[in-house]
Amino acid sequence: MVKPKFKELRRTYGFDEVAIMPGDITVNPDQTNIELNIGEIKLAVPIIASAMDGVTDVDTAIQMSKMGLLAVLHLEGVQTKYENSNEILNEIIHAPQSEVTAILQKIYSAPIKEELVAKRIEAIKKAGAICAVSVTPANTKRLVPVITAAKADILVVQSTVTTARHVSKSYMGLILSELCKSISIPVIVGNCVSYSACLEIMREGVAGILVGIGPGAACTSRQVLGVGDPQVTATLDCAMARDAYYKESGRYVPIITDGGMTNGGDMCKAFASGADGVMLGSIFAQAKEAPGKGYHWGMSTPSPVLPRGTRIRVGTTGTLQQILFGPTSVTDGTQNLVGALRTAMGFCGVTDIREFHTAEVVVAPSITTEGKVWQRGMGCTT
Amino acid sequence: MVKPKFKELRRTYGFDEVAIMPGDITVNPDQTNIELNIGEIKLAVPIIASAMDGVTDVDTAIQMSKMGLLAVLHLEGVQTKYENSNEILNEIIHAPQSEVTAILQKIYSAPIKEELVAKRIEAIKKAGAICAVSVTPANTKRLVPVITAAKADILVVQSTVTTARHVSKSYMGLILSELCKSISIPVIVGNCVSYSACLEIMREGVAGILVGIGPGAACTSRQVLGVGDPQVTATLDCAMARDAYYKESGRYVPIITDGGMTNGGDMCKAFASGADGVMLGSIFAQAKEAPGKGYHWGMSTPSPVLPRGTRIRVGTTGTLQQILFGPTSVTDGTQNLVGALRTAMGFCGVTDIREFHTAEVVVAPSITTEGKVWQRGMGCTT
Amino acid sequence: MVKPKFKELRRTYGFDEVAIMPGDITVNPDQTNIELNIGEIKLAVPIIASAMDGVTDVDTAIQMSKMGLLAVLHLEGVQTKYENSNEILNEIIHAPQSEVTAILQKIYSAPIKEELVAKRIEAIKKAGAICAVSVTPANTKRLVPVITAAKADILVVQSTVTTARHVSKSYMGLILSELCKSISIPVIVGNCVSYSACLEIMREGVAGILVGIGPGAACTSRQVLGVGDPQVTATLDCAMARDAYYKESGRYVPIITDGGMTNGGDMCKAFASGADGVMLGSIFAQAKEAPGKGYHWGMSTPSPVLPRGTRIRVGTTGTLQQILFGPTSVTDGTQNLVGALRTAMGFCGVTDIREFHTAEVVVAPSITTEGKVWQRGMGCTT
Amino acid sequence: MVKPKFKELRRTYGFDEVAIMPGDITVNPDQTNIELNIGEIKLAVPIIASAMDGVTDVDTAIQMSKMGLLAVLHLEGVQTKYENSNEILNEIIHAPQSEVTAILQKIYSAPIKEELVAKRIEAIKKAGAICAVSVTPANTKRLVPVITAAKADILVVQSTVTTARHVSKSYMGLILSELCKSISIPVIVGNCVSYSACLEIMREGVAGILVGIGPGAACTSRQVLGVGDPQVTATLDCAMARDAYYKESGRYVPIITDGGMTNGGDMCKAFASGADGVMLGSIFAQAKEAPGKGYHWGMSTPSPVLPRGTRIRVGTTGTLQQILFGPTSVTDGTQNLVGALRTAMGFCGVTDIREFHTAEVVVAPSITTEGKVWQRGMGCTT
Repeated sequence: MVKPKFKELRRTYGFDEVAIMPGDITVNPDQTNIELNIGEIKLAVPIIASAMDGVTDVDTAIQMSKMGLLAVLHLEGVQTKYENSNEILNEIIHAPQSEVTAILQKIYSAPIKEELVAKRIEAIKKAGAICAVSVTPANTKRLVPVITAAKADILVVQSTVTTARHVSKSYMGLILSELCKSISIPVIVGNCVSYSACLEIMREGVAGILVGIGPGAACTSRQVLGVGDPQVTATLDCAMARDAYYKESGRYVPIITDGGMTNGGDMCKAFASGADGVMLGSIFAQAKEAPGKGYHWGMSTPSPVLPRGTRIRVGTTGTLQQILFGPTSVTDGTQNLVGALRTAMGFCGVTDIREFHTAEVVVAPSITTEGKVWQRGMGCTT
Repeated sequence: MVKPKFKELRRTYGFDEVAIMPGDITVNPDQTNIELNIGEIKLAVPIIASAMDGVTDVDTAIQMSKMGLLAVLHLEGVQTKYENSNEILNEIIHAPQSEVTAILQKIYSAPIKEELVAKRIEAIKKAGAICAVSVTPANTKRLVPVITAAKADILVVQSTVTTARHVSKSYMGLILSELCKSISIPVIVGNCVSYSACLEIMREGVAGILVGIGPGAACTSRQVLGVGDPQVTATLDCAMARDAYYKESGRYVPIITDGGMTNGGDMCKAFASGADGVMLGSIFAQAKEAPGKGYHWGMSTPSPVLPRGTRIRVGTTGTLQQILFGPTSVTDGTQNLVGALRTAMGFCGVTDIREFHTAEVVVAPSITTEGKVWQRGMGCTT
Repeated sequence: MVKPKFKELRRTYGFDEVAIMPGDITVNPDQTNIELNIGEIKLAVPIIASAMDGVTDVDTAIQMSKMGLLAVLHLEGVQTKYENSNEILNEIIHAPQSEVTAILQKIYSAPIKEELVAKRIEAIKKAGAICAVSVTPANTKRLVPVITAAKADILVVQSTVTTARHVSKSYMGLILSELCKSISIPVIVGNCVSYSACLEIMREGVAGILVGIGPGAACTSRQVLGVGDPQVTATLDCAMARDAYYKESGRYVPIITDGGMTNGGDMCKAFASGADGVMLGSIFAQAKEAPGKGYHWGMSTPSPVLPRGTRIRVGTTGTLQQILFGPTSVTDGTQNLVGALRTAMGFCGVTDIREFHTAEVVVAPSITTEGKVWQRGMGCTT
Repeated sequence: MVKPKFKELRRTYGFDEVAIMPGDITVNPDQTNIELNIGEIKLAVPIIASAMDGVTDVDTAIQMSKMGLLAVLHLEGVQTKYENSNEILNEIIHAPQSEVTAILQKIYSAPIKEELVAKRIEAIKKAGAICAVSVTPANTKRLVPVITAAKADILVVQSTVTTARHVSKSYMGLILSELCKSISIPVIVGNCVSYSACLEIMREGVAGILVGIGPGAACTSRQVLGVGDPQVTATLDCAMARDAYYKESGRYVPIITDGGMTNGGDMCKAFASGADGVMLGSIFAQAKEAPGKGYHWGMSTPSPVLPRGTRIRVGTTGTLQQILFGPTSVTDGTQNLVGALRTAMGFCGVTDIREFHTAEVVVAPSITTEGKVWQRGMGCTT
């Protein structure tokens, strides 16, 4: 019997498995430019806070905007379902671990109140901040009028897997190209991970793409559904789509790696792999200012049908200012993210993010064997 | 001295090492068709409960059949060796861990009673359920008359490694082609893992193949014998054999991945790798209705010569209904398996199982380092 | 600057990373032939007990010979340095862990007594057993006359790394070809791991080769020296050398994989990778009859200059009879090794060890994450 | 849509993943030559102690020089910032773990005193020892006059990532070629990891290169910045650069692998991968004579902006004499490093370090699963 050619599976990579190779020249960190442009909007810092209720509320959105970055307010969470959102957040935070998923399911089953959508957006705008908001595809058509009337600056349409084409009998799919044409603010869409899905969505006219699905262990999408793609590979592939689209259209659509980054090292790897921006959740959930007060949960946690992920205690480690700009005495990479990004770029000899995409990323499994930690190479110098 | 070309070993993959890439379009889960056909029998749900005494008895076989799936009753276990099978199950369940293998060896050394074989089958049939039963090759000839007389619907001939050709002096081997011709009900045979063994068995006229050998850590076949093949590779290879056989014969013989799936994610990966159905053991052993009452043991555990595997406490987590169809507040992928399968298919943009085989499976090692769990990417949205 | 072609490193494999694929036919275990020939000597069982003081003494050598296998008595250990060897063994066994290396260094620094060499060999021969003895290259010339006078049957010349050529000023190297010509009994030499070293040694006229260096974690050669080669690759490479030598000379020199096998699965993998025999240490150290009484230590542990490895408590698990032939209620692969070998051969459809070398060995990393053990696939049937 | 060719990432390797294959001949360890030449200076032992305050002070520099190796005194640490350096070291050693980074940041923010630079160098020279000192690029110009006036023998210019070209507005970069021409003592520069950076630096006229960046788990450069390159790959690449430069210039510039070696095995692997020398930190921090008294911290730990790494308790295990030359009863590879190097070279059949570079290094993941440690292959003999 002739043996067939067996199917080869592609190897994909996550943050823990790669490292950035330093460059042949070095650049002083203070000479690096890390700006991110989304449509006409310029962000001084290419970092975006996740549309998660433990991470972003009106206050943190305002503070982050003033620091030069962006926070996305989720319009289908406690902020728009409950007038007294802090009370509800407290209920979540104090729920016993064994009941928390059921409690989340109950809390999130409440309807969205359009007047609260308007109210939250207006509060952010009134403070002079840039306002970005997030909705799922199913609710987009209904909420867009409220969102634009309240003068939000950026619309994020987000679901676990988003594609330009969707087959459904139960409701008319959202047509992205129509959406992008019908409103004047930039539309960011996600999440997606593959070259072709990313390219197709860019062709619809979006202003940015969120990259990543089920990247980590706390989000259980991969455990529940088997679906996933590690973040480094997802970012590399979507960056190729962005470059291909730029070549065909002359329009540069930034890609934003979303999820799975637990420290500055992971964040730097995302940029070196091709990201123009990053979306962080758990790192910001650790801020003193975070609405989750040291707790964190995903937006697919409360799904009534197929809950994925749970509430996690991440603790509170520092202020937003320290997390983003230092100074710090923390040595695990969770503070001074901007300093880390500029230093890594300096080591790679690049002066802006697009040049950073040319840095070499290598496969370099990390050694995490507990007992060996102290033994390994203190050989780093200033 | 000229160095020779060193032997290259083929890399194989298990569930933990792969992920399913989402598709370029998405489909609403409620528009997916997940039917499985075995011969003329149609199952609404492509899931089969293992022929293990802790998983399947007469009652669970009846309940599962009514839910649209299949449970296989093992005809060489406590159900056919003991009239009072529940008493014996209790003895197994309450045995101290240090003595359990010896107790299992003693219990399973009793002879099969043909009248009990008939009685169990008839009980299932009387309830209007589809009745599938399992025997080992050595006992097949002897038991087939009883099985057909009692009007079982499906015969499963199962051993750790099954091939179309067997060399033995001590007994006349079972000739599969003769068996398949001699009886009118569909014959499922297994287990097998390789392309050529699978193809040969299909040519004998079987109606289905069980795929997999020693896939997990609890089954110690690999530790005792060194023999094994991870389930993703086994499924990919046998799927190629099925497709080759379909091309040569026009007959589509479903392959059923058996063993090693611990959650919905693993199950979805089996389908994406090419399975037409899956056989689950430990997940069903956790059902409230399971005869093992939270305990689970393999059928090769009690081997008097070379016991492999032991009794394991899996606990009881939910009803069969919850495990299969939800609703659930469990987020680890052990409940609402059907919902998970339909959602994963939706993310891959496919509408039936055969189309699901075209989804891309990638190598994506999971990060399981304990201390990192909470840190990793909560970035999943609805 | 033109980037050079970076050096590619060869990937090597150990037992934990591979599995044996079952065959396209199956054979009844009782129809397999597992004989091993060393020179003119036929062993019914292709298993050899290590020349280690915790494993082999006069009594166990006699018992194993009667069971059809071989035990090698180390002629540079406590048996030939001390008349009252049992007293010395007790001292080792009862030494506190913190002092044991220093105590071993002191005990093993005693000189070899030639009269004890003769006495131990004669005791084994008197019992009608096959007597194999082991010496290091440096002591071979001096001890060979005693060994041959006492009528040992097999001479093993063993050091961590053995080659056909050795550069030294301090002593005249042992010339293997002269040794092999000068004595009439078969000479087994080792250890070696590479194709070319193995081929060169075979050309010197030896009757067998021990394969492997620093294969495991307990032997710290790799930690101390960085030198090593995983056992599957070492076996595959030396098997190629054996086959090449057989082709050039017509003489079939068996290779014996030595070390790193912790259960029947590992042992079966060694055979499938090309071994004609295996040498086991720690498994036999667990026998009720073992001189180490549940303790085990390597022969390079007491090196006064560079001790590698330490005394380890392995415990006592069963009799030699159970370990080799069962019956057993142990399910972890440490008992009934002969049954396991025959069963694995049956699953691969082969009838003798040389045919077993054609079985496919695949790379299949084992999943050992503690918490997942019970969850993984109980799907093994008889 | 045509799928693009996805980007392939290069696989890199660290010490834990490789092993050295023994050779086809063996050499007596006492016949190996392990000399290292840096410029005109000959070291009997190719090992250099790190420029870290817990490892090297005036006393240890003198002792190590007398033993034939080199210790590098850091000129920007406690020795040159504080007259009473021992008092400051005590403060560091006794700081509570939670405050230690902040305390280090405060202590290291003091200015360098040039009179102390001179005093420390002169103390070493007065004892008749070879004196090597280390500075960062930013302080080199200022300190070189003091260093040369005090008659240091070797200058090390060291930062985390060093390149021949640096972009900065804030200060005039250090021009290496000018530095090398302007002073008469050998200049060692580092750290670097890539082929091209290494080659460029060699062309500037340096006498040696330090290889490695963030190689280990204790140094958190990789966690904070994502930047890194495992030591085996870094060494292989820089060795290629050294050989290319030797071919183009006729000048042989030794490369010194710096960091990540935790035992003799790692050290031997560095040499086999192409290193001419190694720089060790944590192993020497364990010496009875170490100024850190069992504690160890990196020089980038106290960075005020982005601290990386922390103070670690390594304990005290033996004297410098034992660590370097034995004798020892320690079996974990942390003592008798010189004996280990000579033995490994003997196993590989090589007589000097440059010949050792031709040994084959293979990829051979270590098995570190805790529970398996004792089980694995005691099969090592003398």
